[in-house]
Amino acid sequence: MSEDRSTRRIRLGMVGGGEGSFIGAAHRAAARLDDQFELVAGALSSTPGRAHASAAGLHIAHDRSYADYAEMARAEARRSDGIDAVAIVTPNHLHVPVALAFAEQGIHVICDKPIATSLAEAEALAQRVRERGLLFLLTHTYSGYPMVRQARELVAQGAIGEVRIVQVEYVQDWLGEPIEQQGHKQAAWRNDPRQAGPAGALGDIGTHAYHLAGYVTGLKLHELAAELSTFVPGRALDDHVQVMLRYEGGARGLLWASQVASGSRNGLRLRVYGSTGSLQFDQERPEELWLTRPGQPSQCLYRGVPSAPGGLAQAHRIPAGHPEGYLEAFAQLYRDFARAWRGEAGVQLPGLDDGLDGMAFVEAVLRSHREGMRWVRPAR
Amino acid sequence: MSEDRSTRRIRLGMVGGGEGSFIGAAHRAAARLDDQFELVAGALSSTPGRAHASAAGLHIAHDRSYADYAEMARAEARRSDGIDAVAIVTPNHLHVPVALAFAEQGIHVICDKPIATSLAEAEALAQRVRERGLLFLLTHTYSGYPMVRQARELVAQGAIGEVRIVQVEYVQDWLGEPIEQQGHKQAAWRNDPRQAGPAGALGDIGTHAYHLAGYVTGLKLHELAAELSTFVPGRALDDHVQVMLRYEGGARGLLWASQVASGSRNGLRLRVYGSTGSLQFDQERPEELWLTRPGQPSQCLYRGVPSAPGGLAQAHRIPAGHPEGYLEAFAQLYRDFARAWRGEAGVQLPGLDDGLDGMAFVEAVLRSHREGMRWVRPAR
Amino acid sequence: MSEDRSTRRIRLGMVGGGEGSFIGAAHRAAARLDDQFELVAGALSSTPGRAHASAAGLHIAHDRSYADYAEMARAEARRSDGIDAVAIVTPNHLHVPVALAFAEQGIHVICDKPIATSLAEAEALAQRVRERGLLFLLTHTYSGYPMVRQARELVAQGAIGEVRIVQVEYVQDWLGEPIEQQGHKQAAWRNDPRQAGPAGALGDIGTHAYHLAGYVTGLKLHELAAELSTFVPGRALDDHVQVMLRYEGGARGLLWASQVASGSRNGLRLRVYGSTGSLQFDQERPEELWLTRPGQPSQCLYRGVPSAPGGLAQAHRIPAGHPEGYLEAFAQLYRDFARAWRGEAGVQLPGLDDGLDGMAFVEAVLRSHREGMRWVRPAR
Amino acid sequence: MSEDRSTRRIRLGMVGGGEGSFIGAAHRAAARLDDQFELVAGALSSTPGRAHASAAGLHIAHDRSYADYAEMARAEARRSDGIDAVAIVTPNHLHVPVALAFAEQGIHVICDKPIATSLAEAEALAQRVRERGLLFLLTHTYSGYPMVRQARELVAQGAIGEVRIVQVEYVQDWLGEPIEQQGHKQAAWRNDPRQAGPAGALGDIGTHAYHLAGYVTGLKLHELAAELSTFVPGRALDDHVQVMLRYEGGARGLLWASQVASGSRNGLRLRVYGSTGSLQFDQERPEELWLTRPGQPSQCLYRGVPSAPGGLAQAHRIPAGHPEGYLEAFAQLYRDFARAWRGEAGVQLPGLDDGLDGMAFVEAVLRSHREGMRWVRPAR
Repeated sequence: MSEDRSTRRIRLGMVGGGEGSFIGAAHRAAARLDDQFELVAGALSSTPGRAHASAAGLHIAHDRSYADYAEMARAEARRSDGIDAVAIVTPNHLHVPVALAFAEQGIHVICDKPIATSLAEAEALAQRVRERGLLFLLTHTYSGYPMVRQARELVAQGAIGEVRIVQVEYVQDWLGEPIEQQGHKQAAWRNDPRQAGPAGALGDIGTHAYHLAGYVTGLKLHELAAELSTFVPGRALDDHVQVMLRYEGGARGLLWASQVASGSRNGLRLRVYGSTGSLQFDQERPEELWLTRPGQPSQCLYRGVPSAPGGLAQAHRIPAGHPEGYLEAFAQLYRDFARAWRGEAGVQLPGLDDGLDGMAFVEAVLRSHREGMRWVRPAR
Repeated sequence: MSEDRSTRRIRLGMVGGGEGSFIGAAHRAAARLDDQFELVAGALSSTPGRAHASAAGLHIAHDRSYADYAEMARAEARRSDGIDAVAIVTPNHLHVPVALAFAEQGIHVICDKPIATSLAEAEALAQRVRERGLLFLLTHTYSGYPMVRQARELVAQGAIGEVRIVQVEYVQDWLGEPIEQQGHKQAAWRNDPRQAGPAGALGDIGTHAYHLAGYVTGLKLHELAAELSTFVPGRALDDHVQVMLRYEGGARGLLWASQVASGSRNGLRLRVYGSTGSLQFDQERPEELWLTRPGQPSQCLYRGVPSAPGGLAQAHRIPAGHPEGYLEAFAQLYRDFARAWRGEAGVQLPGLDDGLDGMAFVEAVLRSHREGMRWVRPAR
Repeated sequence: MSEDRSTRRIRLGMVGGGEGSFIGAAHRAAARLDDQFELVAGALSSTPGRAHASAAGLHIAHDRSYADYAEMARAEARRSDGIDAVAIVTPNHLHVPVALAFAEQGIHVICDKPIATSLAEAEALAQRVRERGLLFLLTHTYSGYPMVRQARELVAQGAIGEVRIVQVEYVQDWLGEPIEQQGHKQAAWRNDPRQAGPAGALGDIGTHAYHLAGYVTGLKLHELAAELSTFVPGRALDDHVQVMLRYEGGARGLLWASQVASGSRNGLRLRVYGSTGSLQFDQERPEELWLTRPGQPSQCLYRGVPSAPGGLAQAHRIPAGHPEGYLEAFAQLYRDFARAWRGEAGVQLPGLDDGLDGMAFVEAVLRSHREGMRWVRPAR
Repeated sequence: MSEDRSTRRIRLGMVGGGEGSFIGAAHRAAARLDDQFELVAGALSSTPGRAHASAAGLHIAHDRSYADYAEMARAEARRSDGIDAVAIVTPNHLHVPVALAFAEQGIHVICDKPIATSLAEAEALAQRVRERGLLFLLTHTYSGYPMVRQARELVAQGAIGEVRIVQVEYVQDWLGEPIEQQGHKQAAWRNDPRQAGPAGALGDIGTHAYHLAGYVTGLKLHELAAELSTFVPGRALDDHVQVMLRYEGGARGLLWASQVASGSRNGLRLRVYGSTGSLQFDQERPEELWLTRPGQPSQCLYRGVPSAPGGLAQAHRIPAGHPEGYLEAFAQLYRDFARAWRGEAGVQLPGLDDGLDGMAFVEAVLRSHREGMRWVRPAR
């Protein structure tokens, strides 16, 4: 495009995310926080009345509130002030068709994870998005935390030597009872294979854990062996995942994800042990990153503390001691997207490759589980 | 006004807060987070060039960027789409003149703390704002944290019995060196009595600590005895404050504020001990509130955990385990302001009374210090 | 025996534990703490000079310092004031022969873990000890912590419902470098299969983790799948263990033990998740036990706090807030042994069954690892 | 004496500490832990029957169980195997008369704190003990923690620059109700001025806090201003203390001690802020010491971690990660006493000077409180 992208706000549309949606509200707050986006269009619900009511509450003009995402893609593409990017916050099975509909119109895509319900589907999407030369942001939110980025930089700098052990876990308890059978909407689609795909906790939070481990360590998985469990009677999908990990180069690890771990809120934790030190990150205390070398005091690195090793001056908004949290991490992804959209070089977004890796991981876990927990090599 | 305030965004102006200002950026992010405000005008700097450059970066139309706040107040009052409220984020000595200028035009006021540099000045302002029937929000940010509000509710419910002991502290280290003599702008005005008023750390953070203690306990101070210190040579104002507190009804306490407490980031902590239990809050871990009764396990109440005693369903945005922080607390005050502006009954804002109490506290501390740490009763 | 055992101190001998031994010193301090034992004989080293020097430093009479454990067993059995019990703190391969030597003389046995280097060897020992009707304490120290016992009681009382998930880990870093090749005596025997047996980290700390999980949950393992790793070049035994656990009744779990987890000191941690709540224990903060029920505040149970659920009045010495630690936990096992020796009914000691279970676990892990991580059922 | 003191155990007597006494049991466990003492005599209670029953339970020979401390002092002095030292664990008012009785016989003294009930009394004792050239250990237990000693060394080495701020607190809740009026023996004597002296919480725990601050910082108090409170109706002595501190050289501080701080166990915490860093110690997590320099990561120094700054190789027994606690700290004082008794040079014991300083502190607090919280300079 010839227009000057350096200053104007990005025009954003949203598919999904009507009233009551947690993740839609999170995307919108994230988009607002740094004031680089304006939400101007939406197909917020597949129920027209609900869609329009939600749109009105969000100051979206009535003529840009759509009940159908395909119509929205076409209509917005025709407008001179049409959306620059679409945020997709639907149940999983719609990620790919919605993304394709907008990509076909040359509209950039911001998509919640997992990218798809199968690797094949994800590959088709990836090919099309690449052909069109579009930006694609997969919102692996946790990679937006400043201390996660500092951890990644520390590993890359060799601050803990060669990585030997990776321990990652993501545990919640909100599916400890069969609430999907009791009208809980968020739980219902997540445990319906037609909407969620073949993976339950595995797809919903296991993919986050897997992404976080790879993001920080830079390691590529060689093979895995996995067991899925379903603790709650009558549930169609897994609610508990245990995976043994063998990374290329010899590192070993465990991944554990559960949505029935009673008393857990949103316990995403990563520990990485190298030949000369270790790093620990706990998402519920995201301002802190622990770095410990054998025989030395443990160091608590804190966001915004300037002299910490591996610090990233740009990765936060407010001074140390004024806690940032989940929305700020989310906003960081939107900020990065904006930087890329404005043409800044070298911006790394979690995107298509992360999505494909995630789907390959999911499929390898499913296969290992089906085949008696044998070692399986992910397709990529 | 006869217009429908139920849905439209509040038109906001800002005085102060140009490039490089921490607190201006915090106000703007807080205003954006819940999408109930739009920033449409500003006198962001007293240097016209800087004011206009800052305004452009914030998508403020050029004709609504002012170099002079008095002009802004008059001009905005004349517009049919003029601002509904002004956010004042200047150095302390301008709070009252700016607030008066807008109040005279019938524009609501959101003002950073401390409200003024003297009680007399604050009283004049309060009288005028009340006469005009305007909303006045004094941004004692920390009272916006959900767990602080839960603490207040717990005390009010009698969860810890009769309050006996109040321990509050606010410690930082960023003024441990004489950076105000080395061109650090934020430090410079805070240590210049003409801009900051007669109180240094006392006014800057001591007032926050004092407010937090009163907000949570509901106690009224009876008298105090205080000592101010200045540890950094050449500094004009106090950088360390110690105060003994006697509350009405017999509770005792200590308040400690310091900006030279090496290794501290933004350590605002409150502990309240009653006859049957205690509460502890640490601003750097704002998702947690500790409630302990003698001989019982300590309970860690967590934001968003529904069955916790004294819980406030409405006081947060995202589920437990997805950390909220400083900006969300700040946004809560803006959200409350919006609720009041839209006519909701019963909304409590930190406002004029809090500002007057704060100034009475500051003046009592200054007097006790001057008079050899004798017991002094605040003027209100 | 007809003597009155109600008051006199138990006469204790020790095999192994000469100067420089950590575990020997720990046993002795544990025995002393409650003043129910007196150390009167020893074969503290297989080097006579070292044995006698160590004995003198411990106030052991010269004629009861032995260079040979077999001689000690015979000689002490002949004395009217001979030892009542022997504490065995040698490298692993000597546990069984030493224990047998004393058991044959009717002397009770206190033995460090692991009980043996093979299940067969352990079974032979168990049979003989049982035939002789002797007490046998296997010092799984961590089961002596009051909060571990409280956790066990809470699970038994149903405080967390039916156990679904068990996460246990024991991580250290002291073998992160090949110090066994550099003259480090403690490291040398642990990595020498002739002294340590076929298991490295698995036998040394993996057995502790396995015991702790079983002790607290009361669950019996159904089968496991395991991978052993050796990260340090030239090392003969495993230094890193990962195990998938399937318990009888359907609970799932992970066990992870490592002696190359950089930056770890003595990180034994257990987390147990049931259908209605969870428990967490961290050995490095042994005064605390966390109990969390979904949607409720987390409770930090603290040793000595009387009204905590599942509390054990007898299981500690000093009031809450006066930290007890590792030696006190160790002493608890000695105290329990003394209670059993004095004839108190119902005292439970970690003993032969725990030792046999531990060896069955070790052998199942070794087999699963050898056979490509297939699921293996322990021999008991 | 001409005997060889290098190896034999020190013969210890005890006055006070009969059944049910917490502090007597703590002294005995501390004395046993390193096996350098044997308890051989006692006047454990002023009630003969209780004294003898307690003695029997502690393996003290009947002829060395006394009902009267004065008789014990004379009798033990006459024996060739008489005690070398006496441990005094009575209520406060007996500390001086008992200590004098034994000192007159040339017997070394180990005395619980506070040393006396008045400075004058303490001075008389000090003079006599010095004249006799005896060892005197005042059991300020908390100075026995390895991390407290490391803190002291760090301050002395200049690791935090010049000390500016001292914050020390000691808070408990066990006197939150008037249990002294309900038959609680430990509470009864502590709130009886005839047994406790004129200071309640001030003498019982305030002196510990004061000692800890001085021990770590090496600072000498210049003057103080204090307020005492009694929250529990009917109580004769203070249960809550707040003190403003002015140290020589300009440092400022606050000391707070309370026995009615609901939900507190044994919360002794010290924070010291210097010109270039700060230290924090919390007695309930005694294995940790936090060192933070402005703009740097916080360092958690851990007992036994060898490369930590200011580390003390000798000050602990078991490796890092195997928690030591209160009894080990207590035992450290006994170990130091033994080193001094055996003739080792340069051993520093908390002793007469600490006791005199403590009494001067108590009397200055009492006077400041009586005189309207005016600034008072301690008599030494």
